[in-house]
Amino acid sequence: MSLKRYLPILQWAPGYGRDQATSDLVAATIVTVMLIPQSLAYALLAGLPAYVGLYASILPLMVYAVFGTSRTLSVGPVAVASLMTAAALAPLAEVGSPEYLAGAVLLAVMSGLMLTVMGILRLGFLANFLSHPVISGFITASGLVIAASQLKHLFGVQASGHNLLEIGRSLWLTIGQFNGVTLLLGAGTLVFLVFARKGLKPLLVTLGLAPRVADILGRTAPIVAVVVTTLLAWQLDLESAGVRLVGEVPRGLPELTLPSLDPGLWQQLAVSALLIGVVGFVESVSVGQTLAAKRRQTIDPDQELIGLGNANLSAGLSGGLPVTGGFSRSVVNFDAGAETPAAGAYAAVGIALATMFLTPAIAYLPQATLAATIIVAVSTLIDLPALGRTWRYSRPDFGAMLATIVLTLVHSVEAGIVAGVALSIGLFLYRTSRPHSAVVGRVPGTEHFRNVLRHKVELCPRVTFLRVDESLYFANARFLEETVMDLVTRQPELQDLVLVCPAVNLVDASALESLEAINERMKDAGVRLHLSEVKGPVMDRLQDTELLSHLGGQVFLSTYEAWQRLTDRSRLDRQPA
Amino acid sequence: MSLKRYLPILQWAPGYGRDQATSDLVAATIVTVMLIPQSLAYALLAGLPAYVGLYASILPLMVYAVFGTSRTLSVGPVAVASLMTAAALAPLAEVGSPEYLAGAVLLAVMSGLMLTVMGILRLGFLANFLSHPVISGFITASGLVIAASQLKHLFGVQASGHNLLEIGRSLWLTIGQFNGVTLLLGAGTLVFLVFARKGLKPLLVTLGLAPRVADILGRTAPIVAVVVTTLLAWQLDLESAGVRLVGEVPRGLPELTLPSLDPGLWQQLAVSALLIGVVGFVESVSVGQTLAAKRRQTIDPDQELIGLGNANLSAGLSGGLPVTGGFSRSVVNFDAGAETPAAGAYAAVGIALATMFLTPAIAYLPQATLAATIIVAVSTLIDLPALGRTWRYSRPDFGAMLATIVLTLVHSVEAGIVAGVALSIGLFLYRTSRPHSAVVGRVPGTEHFRNVLRHKVELCPRVTFLRVDESLYFANARFLEETVMDLVTRQPELQDLVLVCPAVNLVDASALESLEAINERMKDAGVRLHLSEVKGPVMDRLQDTELLSHLGGQVFLSTYEAWQRLTDRSRLDRQPA
Repeated sequence: MSLKRYLPILQWAPGYGRDQATSDLVAATIVTVMLIPQSLAYALLAGLPAYVGLYASILPLMVYAVFGTSRTLSVGPVAVASLMTAAALAPLAEVGSPEYLAGAVLLAVMSGLMLTVMGILRLGFLANFLSHPVISGFITASGLVIAASQLKHLFGVQASGHNLLEIGRSLWLTIGQFNGVTLLLGAGTLVFLVFARKGLKPLLVTLGLAPRVADILGRTAPIVAVVVTTLLAWQLDLESAGVRLVGEVPRGLPELTLPSLDPGLWQQLAVSALLIGVVGFVESVSVGQTLAAKRRQTIDPDQELIGLGNANLSAGLSGGLPVTGGFSRSVVNFDAGAETPAAGAYAAVGIALATMFLTPAIAYLPQATLAATIIVAVSTLIDLPALGRTWRYSRPDFGAMLATIVLTLVHSVEAGIVAGVALSIGLFLYRTSRPHSAVVGRVPGTEHFRNVLRHKVELCPRVTFLRVDESLYFANARFLEETVMDLVTRQPELQDLVLVCPAVNLVDASALESLEAINERMKDAGVRLHLSEVKGPVMDRLQDTELLSHLGGQVFLSTYEAWQRLTDRSRLDRQPA
Repeated sequence: MSLKRYLPILQWAPGYGRDQATSDLVAATIVTVMLIPQSLAYALLAGLPAYVGLYASILPLMVYAVFGTSRTLSVGPVAVASLMTAAALAPLAEVGSPEYLAGAVLLAVMSGLMLTVMGILRLGFLANFLSHPVISGFITASGLVIAASQLKHLFGVQASGHNLLEIGRSLWLTIGQFNGVTLLLGAGTLVFLVFARKGLKPLLVTLGLAPRVADILGRTAPIVAVVVTTLLAWQLDLESAGVRLVGEVPRGLPELTLPSLDPGLWQQLAVSALLIGVVGFVESVSVGQTLAAKRRQTIDPDQELIGLGNANLSAGLSGGLPVTGGFSRSVVNFDAGAETPAAGAYAAVGIALATMFLTPAIAYLPQATLAATIIVAVSTLIDLPALGRTWRYSRPDFGAMLATIVLTLVHSVEAGIVAGVALSIGLFLYRTSRPHSAVVGRVPGTEHFRNVLRHKVELCPRVTFLRVDESLYFANARFLEETVMDLVTRQPELQDLVLVCPAVNLVDASALESLEAINERMKDAGVRLHLSEVKGPVMDRLQDTELLSHLGGQVFLSTYEAWQRLTDRSRLDRQPA
């Protein structure tokens, strides 16, 4: 049982048959065709040689097939992780230097180790700290930054930067020296890819193709662009016209790469590695769950941590960059009929073949083609209307989203995420720090007690019933102290205060301390503190505490019982609603 | 109204009469006698010249009398803030250097500004982030560190360090060179002070004094120790016997001191200033509320921020160190009958007189006397049994407390607080990240629905009712997704799923996204998602969202209505409890 949990391949491999193999092979072929240009492009985005993207698309896919729980997730380099990699490495080394490449390897290894450890310790819930507005915000902002960062390749100029401000300033200074041929090639590719995405499928369907075939043909547009522009660059010798090409790449499979063991470097990259890993995990799980649900399957998030962790570990050890489950490729994999993670392993074989035999051709691939591929791919990430939707739904969530977007745009993805997470948590604690509470009175003739502000109820001037509508914990404990003290100060006649607790699911140590303080202060003020309707588990906890042994009043099972015992029937007031 | 809010002195000064003045003067005299040795000692603890403590006990008390809302809080230097000041300044400058003193001034000014701004923005709730286990933990640990740090003065050796490890190592190396006379003097003072605290009052009562007078006499023990040991040091020329004295101090009132405007220094001290300010604020408010309650008064925490902020600002501008409301002095002030903040202003006059006329005598005061004063004072802070109480009450709270104590002891108060706060928040989010939920069925013959695991209820195999017992927000949104998908996967027959929501007080944007994802996944799996008993405010929010417009099922006002519409009465199952 436990072995099957940690090696999900044992769940499906024993029953693996010819039909499944056929489906998986078809899907793998389509995914391979998509993955070649994407992996080259995302390596370039990360500031790495393009072939590193291919390296990261071989071993990790095989490893994920063994350890992953999603049947259809397609693992490999993705845009956001590549942007974060570039931002993390920029302060450490020059793009193109051996130290830079070593940094990318170390990032993959570290985030792999971190995810694996989190998986073993079952810490998947930590990913919940990335609230939806934060994820949505930094993905939109990353898409904008990534698209902006590719403009230099389209124009054939030298520019740099890891946020909109830097990129804009750099482009402003260099845009004058644009290369006409590069721009023509890049803009042409961009127009073709946009058309392929929007208009090709309807056109093919009109021409008589089946919608599914038309859809798959549409997906091959990037590889068509790669092949055509590579041929153009080779035949027309575009390099001499100033078009920058991917250039000479090593032929053959990646070799084992050992990560740096420099503790200073580990420390410098720790936060980045954690964020890259967790961000990738959140995206993968979200895609994986969506696809699994369509077939009434499930995935195990804690095991996914192990699967993605090992995939990243193997990415680093084979000289690649951080990987995760990509959204668009996974959807294609699913739609093309992949049935098991074996499809991923087959795609890995496809990439390995490409690495062995296609690399001479890749040397002629124009960088502008890859830039156009990236821009079209990331344009789907940008969801600005989400800002409006979130604004209408919830101001605090909008605040967290806006802070994330702005900081990602003007500073970095990491700053955006950290600020967004901190703000989400802070706003949540703020929202729960002022719990709803209501003074309640008896609905005449019944055993029910309702808010005095909303209902016609009976009151007793010397006894106040205060209903608390939230669990009591450190963020709201002092607020309760203030509420109670206000009540006592405003009612000099008060002799008994009953806290009505049916909605209190938790009383933490801070709230216990506050209740004890309230109790002592009530005693000093000559008021007895009572509790009523305390839930069983909460009562079990309170049993041996000073609160109960020193309680000025009593604990009543029901509020009505407290009412009967404490109120003097001759002195009841009736309060209009 | 608003002026009275920001200047609480306007609330009490107009009606201030002779009786109140008399009470305040008596209390002020007693507090002054306590405050002189304490302020000297805490300045020394902060690594500053002793007279700086006097400077910090003049203007801040007057300023607090104008802006503070507690009638009886006694503001001035306190032990924990002084320890934190020393730790914050240690990496910046040599003890005794002008830069060190300038750092203390800047800390006071910055924490004053921060508290004032927080008060104006009504951010007092931020102090709630310091949960009780964290406060209790760092105060206990600070007490231990402070007591250990004073041993060097008792033994008359040179030692240093800001945590137990450093202090221990330093003492281990130097303890051999202890000074016998200093040890005799210090240990003698210590024994006297401990006796004064435990045994003097009963003795005086036995000798026929009224308990209240005996109590007040007991409080004067530190000043008696100061006077006696100063006379001894002067008459016997103890300095030549190797006893370290406070030494020459400037005579007269403090002059206006302007803080450094070096932005680098501000940045370095920002976190420390914030923590010193907030920790002081939390302590002050807690003391202030406790004392106010005894007379059915209240304090306004946001205005307290302004009061303490201005007090710190004035402490810095008059060359002092960070101040806050001290626990023991405030209790004495209260017990001695102080009725208004004027008592604090009178005490300030007392300290000012001491600064002008007693400083020649203070030069002969042995440092060992002050060390003994500090040790006895902080011994009341150390509450190790709290660890056991918290362990028994709640493991997560114990974890936060232990982390705070250990980090404070082996690293610093700041590290302890930051770790404790992060752990408290993390553990709370963890606790709420797995909300209780239950599949419910109908209690036969009623409109009530109860947990199928606990009650004999009717079920329908094609309709599942899932009751959610917590507000839905980012930390638990994905858990709900998993719970729901598990249900759907385990029940292939399922056609309808009803989320029963009477306990859901909030659905944030993340949870809304999760509900939308659940809805879409349900549709893909051929299951209709319904909602029932959604609270009014939550429903108002959901009204215009995609969730409702794309909901696979319906929204039912009551669960019973859903039951009637969805279940096929002929196929009901009865499930035993």
